Amino acid sequence: MIIQHYKDVEEMIPQESGVNGVKMRRVIAEKEGAENFVMRVFEIEAGGNTPLHTHDWEHEVFVLKGPIVIVSSEGKKTAKNGDVVFVPGGEEHQFRNESDEVVEFICLIPIKK
Amino acid sequence: MIIQHYKDVEEMIPQESGVNGVKMRRVIAEKEGAENFVMRVFEIEAGGNTPLHTHDWEHEVFVLKGPIVIVSSEGKKTAKNGDVVFVPGGEEHQFRNESDEVVEFICLIPIKK
Repeated sequence: MIIQHYKDVEEMIPQESGVNGVKMRRVIAEKEGAENFVMRVFEIEAGGNTPLHTHDWEHEVFVLKGPIVIVSSEGKKTAKNGDVVFVPGGEEHQFRNESDEVVEFICLIPIKK
Repeated sequence: MIIQHYKDVEEMIPQESGVNGVKMRRVIAEKEGAENFVMRVFEIEAGGNTPLHTHDWEHEVFVLKGPIVIVSSEGKKTAKNGDVVFVPGGEEHQFRNESDEVVEFICLIPIKK
């Protein structure tokens, strides 16, 4: 069993085009022994955003600190503290911080096999 | 895309032997379209516990409100707010609330295929 605080995991700055003001921590991943899915925790600074993109895998999200604006083909929606978000594979999406404070969310993805 | 507050998802009382004072919400599951893993949120009331048990699948946990005492073959450990816990498949484990207030955690499991 591994117990660690998410803030003690090294942060990474995603290098993908279209990312602004985002930090990611892979808090439960392959190095911890994960075989099926990976838990990441994201911070987005005020005015920042993830890329508007599409991929064939899903996201399962829990909002630790909102509000987070989520852009998709359905338009703009807002997720607040304690909201869970399911983004199915193949759906375009972007997470935006349109507030004045850092927002945080947990986002899980499957491990490809 | 589905956005919903975790408290708006119907709670279930696990019926497994050895469970005391536990509520579970399956907040992102098959009905939301999950195909690979399920997100559940647990509450354990003061003095309550999950069963001491073993199964062949893993847990990926994020502690929303601790402290949570986790019993395993390694003894007793305590997880606090913001800790993540990885319990590999095959490791005996039990989550206990030895505090005076409700504790809460997110716990994900794979969908068996």
